[in-house]
Amino acid sequence: MRARELGIAIGELEPGRRGAITDVAGVRVGHATLIEGADVRTGVTVVIPPRNVFAAPHRLNGNGEMTGLEWVRESGVLTTPVAITNTHSVGVVRDALVEAAVARPDAPDWSLPVVAETWDGYLNDINGFHVRPEHVHDALADASEDVAEGNVGGGTGMICHGFKGGIGTASRHAGEWTVGVLVQANHGRRSRLAIDGVPVGRELGIEAIPGPSRPEGSIIVLAATDAPLLPHQCERLAQRAAFGIARTGGAGENSSGDLLIAFSTGNDPSDDTARLIANEELDPLFYAAIEATEEAIVNALLQAETMTGRGGATVHALDAAALVDVLRSYGRGGSEARA
Amino acid sequence: MRARELGIAIGELEPGRRGAITDVAGVRVGHATLIEGADVRTGVTVVIPPRNVFAAPHRLNGNGEMTGLEWVRESGVLTTPVAITNTHSVGVVRDALVEAAVARPDAPDWSLPVVAETWDGYLNDINGFHVRPEHVHDALADASEDVAEGNVGGGTGMICHGFKGGIGTASRHAGEWTVGVLVQANHGRRSRLAIDGVPVGRELGIEAIPGPSRPEGSIIVLAATDAPLLPHQCERLAQRAAFGIARTGGAGENSSGDLLIAFSTGNDPSDDTARLIANEELDPLFYAAIEATEEAIVNALLQAETMTGRGGATVHALDAAALVDVLRSYGRGGSEARA
Amino acid sequence: MRARELGIAIGELEPGRRGAITDVAGVRVGHATLIEGADVRTGVTVVIPPRNVFAAPHRLNGNGEMTGLEWVRESGVLTTPVAITNTHSVGVVRDALVEAAVARPDAPDWSLPVVAETWDGYLNDINGFHVRPEHVHDALADASEDVAEGNVGGGTGMICHGFKGGIGTASRHAGEWTVGVLVQANHGRRSRLAIDGVPVGRELGIEAIPGPSRPEGSIIVLAATDAPLLPHQCERLAQRAAFGIARTGGAGENSSGDLLIAFSTGNDPSDDTARLIANEELDPLFYAAIEATEEAIVNALLQAETMTGRGGATVHALDAAALVDVLRSYGRGGSEARA
Amino acid sequence: MRARELGIAIGELEPGRRGAITDVAGVRVGHATLIEGADVRTGVTVVIPPRNVFAAPHRLNGNGEMTGLEWVRESGVLTTPVAITNTHSVGVVRDALVEAAVARPDAPDWSLPVVAETWDGYLNDINGFHVRPEHVHDALADASEDVAEGNVGGGTGMICHGFKGGIGTASRHAGEWTVGVLVQANHGRRSRLAIDGVPVGRELGIEAIPGPSRPEGSIIVLAATDAPLLPHQCERLAQRAAFGIARTGGAGENSSGDLLIAFSTGNDPSDDTARLIANEELDPLFYAAIEATEEAIVNALLQAETMTGRGGATVHALDAAALVDVLRSYGRGGSEARA
Repeated sequence: MRARELGIAIGELEPGRRGAITDVAGVRVGHATLIEGADVRTGVTVVIPPRNVFAAPHRLNGNGEMTGLEWVRESGVLTTPVAITNTHSVGVVRDALVEAAVARPDAPDWSLPVVAETWDGYLNDINGFHVRPEHVHDALADASEDVAEGNVGGGTGMICHGFKGGIGTASRHAGEWTVGVLVQANHGRRSRLAIDGVPVGRELGIEAIPGPSRPEGSIIVLAATDAPLLPHQCERLAQRAAFGIARTGGAGENSSGDLLIAFSTGNDPSDDTARLIANEELDPLFYAAIEATEEAIVNALLQAETMTGRGGATVHALDAAALVDVLRSYGRGGSEARA
Repeated sequence: MRARELGIAIGELEPGRRGAITDVAGVRVGHATLIEGADVRTGVTVVIPPRNVFAAPHRLNGNGEMTGLEWVRESGVLTTPVAITNTHSVGVVRDALVEAAVARPDAPDWSLPVVAETWDGYLNDINGFHVRPEHVHDALADASEDVAEGNVGGGTGMICHGFKGGIGTASRHAGEWTVGVLVQANHGRRSRLAIDGVPVGRELGIEAIPGPSRPEGSIIVLAATDAPLLPHQCERLAQRAAFGIARTGGAGENSSGDLLIAFSTGNDPSDDTARLIANEELDPLFYAAIEATEEAIVNALLQAETMTGRGGATVHALDAAALVDVLRSYGRGGSEARA
Repeated sequence: MRARELGIAIGELEPGRRGAITDVAGVRVGHATLIEGADVRTGVTVVIPPRNVFAAPHRLNGNGEMTGLEWVRESGVLTTPVAITNTHSVGVVRDALVEAAVARPDAPDWSLPVVAETWDGYLNDINGFHVRPEHVHDALADASEDVAEGNVGGGTGMICHGFKGGIGTASRHAGEWTVGVLVQANHGRRSRLAIDGVPVGRELGIEAIPGPSRPEGSIIVLAATDAPLLPHQCERLAQRAAFGIARTGGAGENSSGDLLIAFSTGNDPSDDTARLIANEELDPLFYAAIEATEEAIVNALLQAETMTGRGGATVHALDAAALVDVLRSYGRGGSEARA
Repeated sequence: MRARELGIAIGELEPGRRGAITDVAGVRVGHATLIEGADVRTGVTVVIPPRNVFAAPHRLNGNGEMTGLEWVRESGVLTTPVAITNTHSVGVVRDALVEAAVARPDAPDWSLPVVAETWDGYLNDINGFHVRPEHVHDALADASEDVAEGNVGGGTGMICHGFKGGIGTASRHAGEWTVGVLVQANHGRRSRLAIDGVPVGRELGIEAIPGPSRPEGSIIVLAATDAPLLPHQCERLAQRAAFGIARTGGAGENSSGDLLIAFSTGNDPSDDTARLIANEELDPLFYAAIEATEEAIVNALLQAETMTGRGGATVHALDAAALVDVLRSYGRGGSEARA
C-alpha cells in the first residue's frame, strides 16, 4: 500500500500517473538488491536522466557523501546517472559508473559521477564491502519507468524514523509541469515522525516497536522536473524539497547526511538556446517539490517491509492499519475518514 | 494571548521564562512604532546582542535584504545590533546605525550594520519613506528584555499567511542551553498555514476573512543562543530555524525574502579562547531552533491585531477562538483538548 | 595617461574601442564627485545595465558591503543600477535608488538595489555623511558611455596600494564577445603592488612616497559582458575577475571588502528563451576578465591625481615616469622597451 | 633542484626548515608511485594530519572531484587523511581509506574520506584502473615528514602549464606560525605560465617543447597551518591559496578541477576549548598561503622529470637552465642575478 491507497493525500496538488519520479518523461530508475545470507542487506539504485541536464544540489546536513557535486555546482550540468548505495560502497559504485561511461562509443575523456549514500550498518554487514561493480551494471540494466519502493536497491537495509525505511517516490503536477521525487530514506527520530501534520511517531509509541538505538541516519533526495529550469533555479527546487523532510519530522540532525539534488529535463544544455521560466512562475514547482518529497518519504515507510539482518537485528515496518487509526483520531486519513 | 496561553504547545522542549529571544542572557529588543494618520503603519525593531558575537546567516529565499552579511560570513562575527524595518527604509536605518556606532567613545573606523526588512506596502505608505534616523535611536533607547509582539516596530504593518502579522518571539531550553527566536513575519499563503501540524489555513477558509490579493511576503528570523557555538555552527542553527517556517506552511515563495541569522553569546570573539560544543551535541539546539521559530510565528499571528491602513485597507487578525476550535477538531489544543 | 598609453599591455587579448566597461553595448557609467572645502572628498558612481540582466556576485573578502546580493544570488537577475560610494553612505544611496525606481512609470512594488562601497575616511570626512540623495540622481543623470577615471565619483577619496586610487576601467575582446570591467580601487599594500608581474611597489620604495599608515582598504569590481551567460556562469566570471586583483598584488586582506559582481547583457531574463554558451567556450572570457581587471586597477592608479584632503592629509599619485623606469629595468614596458 | 636552489625566492616571507607542508608539525606525507610497463604512470599521495583538525575547502573551478567535502563544510572538521590520485581511481582510493578507518581499534561507525584527483590520461592508461587498495595502504605506510616531489604518488603522470608536473610543496613562516602547502599540479596553459611575475611560458616558446594538445588540467592544493584557525578561517586560507595559482598563470579554466582545502593543527576539535586568533591577525597567514602555493607549483615543475608514457607520449620537464636565463633577462633570479 502506498500513501494514496491509504487515503493519505498530502498537500493540494495532483500526483502524476505513476506517482513516481518517472512521471518526468525520460527519467528511468533501476535497482540492484543484495539480500544474501544472514548479514548482507544492501544494494544500488540508479536514477538516469534522459541526457545531460541542468542541475544543482542543496545540503540540508552534510554528514554524508554525494560525489561529483563540485562539477555540478560549477557547470550547472549533471552529466551522469545518479547512484545511491551504502556509505562504504560509494567508491566502488563511483568507479563502476566511470567505467561504464568510458566504455560507451562516445566516451568522455573523464567522468565525475554523482554517487550518494546512506548508512545501513545496523541491518547490513557494511564493512564487508559487498557491493561490486557488477551490481552497478545490474542496476543500470534494470532501469525503467517502473519504480520499485521499500527494501530495494540502495534502500534495502535502511531505517526511517525508527521504522523500516528505504526507497520511496512520488510526483506532483504543477500546472503544465511535473515534479518527481525519489528518496532513499534512512533518517529521522521515531518521536518526531509526522505524517500530514499528525504526530504519528509519538502516538505509535516509542517503545511499541523495537528499533535501533541510533535514532538518526540520512536521506538522499532526487527531484526531477520537466519545467525548463536553469541551474540556479534547480538549486532553489532542491532547497524546497528539504521542506518535505522538515514537514515529516526531519531536522537535519548532526549524524544525518541529508543531501538533495534537483535536475530539469526541460532544457538541453548542449543546445544553442534554453527556454526560460520566470522566477515569478516557480511557486507551484516549489509546492510540488515539498509535497512530493513528503509523500515519497511516506511511501518509503509504507512500502518497506519488516527486515531481519546483521546479527539477527530486526527493524519493523510501519503498520499501515495502526497508522490509519492514528490519522483518523486526528481528523485525517482521506475525506471519508474526517470526523 | 500567546500560543502557550491558548494551550498550543509546539514540540517537546520547555520554553524559557519569558518565552522570548531575551531568555538568552544579555540580548535586548527595542521597537519604534510609527502609526500616524491614515497611511503610516511601519517602524523599526532592533535586537541587540550583549557584545560582538559569533554569528552566521542562512538564506531560505533571497527576495529581500539583510545588509552586512558579507562581513558576517567572512569574519564569523556580528559586530552591530540587528535592525528590521520595511523594505524601502533599510538605507536610512543602516546609516543611522553607522552614525550611532561612530558616535560611541570606542568608535570603530567603519561599521557594516546588519539591517533586514519585509514589505509593508499594503498597509503602509512605504514609498513615503517615513522612517527617519531618530526612529532608530528610539528603538535602540527602547531596548530591554521585555519583547512586545504583534503590530510593533518593524512588524507594525506586516501580514502573515493572510492574517495580520508582525513581531513574534519564543524560546526553548535545550539541556543547559537556551535558544531564543524573534521573527518579523510577513510571509505565507493563507491556504498553507499549519499550526502544530493542523491545516488551520484551509479550515478557517480562504474567503472568510478578506485579505490582500498578494499572498506572500517575507520573514526575517533571528535566533540567539547561549550555547558556545562557533560561526559554522551558527550557520547550522540558522538553517534549522528555517524548518520552523516550513512546518507552519512557509515555502520560501519566490516573492518572499526569507533571511535568517543566528548568533551565539556563549563565546566572546575577542577572547583568547573559545569554548567548544561538539557537533554531536547540537541536535537539541536544532530542535529548539525549529520549535522556537514555529512558536514565534504563531505568536506573531496571535499577538497582532486587526489593522486598517493605507487607502483604508484592512487586514484582520487571526481569531483565537476560531483557531482553538479548529485545533480541537483535529485533536489538538493542549492536553485537555485532546479527544 | 592610461596603461596602454604608457606601453603597458597586460595579457594577450585585445582591448575594446574605449578600453572601458562601456565597450559592452548598452552599459553606461555616471559619477557625482564631491570635493568641497578641506575635508569632503567622496562621491557616487553608478553603472547602469541596459535592462534587467543575468548576474552573480563573488566574495573575495567580505569586509565590505554590497547590498542586494541575496536577491541577485537567488534570482540570478540584477534589476537595478549598481552604485558605489563610501562605506558610511551606502544607506542613503540605496534608498535614493529605491526612490528613483518607484518614481518610474513602471514602478515595481519593491526594489532591492545593489550598492557597494569602499572606505575613504583617510582623505574624506566620512562621518560627516556628506552624500545626499541628489548626488545619486546627479550620477544617474551623468551616465554615458564615456567613463571618467581616477578621483571621480565613488573613487574620489580612495587609496590603492599606498598610492592615490579611485575609479579605473578596461575591456577585452574574447572572440566575438567583449568583457568590460570597472573598479573602485582602494585596496592593497604598497610593498605588494605588481604591474604586469613586476614588483613595482618594492622598487618604488615603501618610504619614498608618504602614504597612510593603514595599508589595506577594499576593491569593488563590476564585470560586464555581452556573452550570453547564465547566472551560474556570471558567478564564474566574477570569480575570475578576482584573479586580476591577485596578479596586481591584492590578497583579500582581512580589512578589505573585496566584492565582485558580473552581469551579462547577452540574454534578457524576461524573454522566453536564452542563448546558451557552452561551458567549454568560457576560457577566453575568463582570461578577458582577469586581464581587464588587472588593467582597470592600473588605470585607476595612473588616472588618479595626488590629493590633499581631511586634516591636510595627502596621498600621492603613482608617478608614471618612475613606473616606466621600473618596468623597463625589468624588461617590460611595451615591445619597444624590451631589452 | 627546487625553486630556492635556483635562487627563485617568491615573496617576502621565510620558508620553513624543510620547505614543505610537513613544516607544520605532525603532518606527514606518503606516496605510492605506479610506473609499470609502457602505459602505467599514476599513483596515490596521502597527506595525514596529526588527528582530527578544523578544516574547510575552497572551489576555484569545479571540474574535478574532492570527496567528503559536504561533511567538512558542515562539521568544520577533517576526520581522515586526504588522498590524491587520478580521476578515475577516486573510488577505489576512497573505499580503501574507509577500510583502513574501520579496521582501526577505535573504528568509527562510518567514514567519509577526502579523496581528490587530477587527470593523467595523457601519460597514463587511466581507463585501465591500475590503482588498487594496496597502493593506498602503501602510501599510508610510506608517510613521513620527508616529502618527495615531482613524478611521485598521485602526481606521477601529471602535466603543468605544458611541462611535466606533479607533486610540489613549500612552506612559509608567518610570525610565530607556519603555513605549508602541497600541490598536485596538472593545470595551466604553457603561454600563461608566470614565475615570480615573469612570463616564462611565453619566453620559453609555445612550440619549443612538444606538449599535449589539451592545454589545461587541474590542480589540487592542500594548505596546513599550526595557527589555531577556526573552520571559517580555514576557508579564508584556502581561498587565498588560490591566489598562488593565479599568480603563476592559472585561471581556473573550465576543464580544470581546481579544488583546495586548508586545515589547522592549532586546535583539537575534540577539546573543550579552542584557541582563537583574531581575524585582524590573519594577513600574514594569507600572504604565506599565497607565497607557499606559488612556490609549491614551481617546485612541482622543477622537481618533475621528462616522462614517456601511454602510447609513447612524452612530456618534457621545464629546463632549469633555460628558466634561469629567462628570469635573468627579466631582472630576476635571486639577488645575485639582478642586473
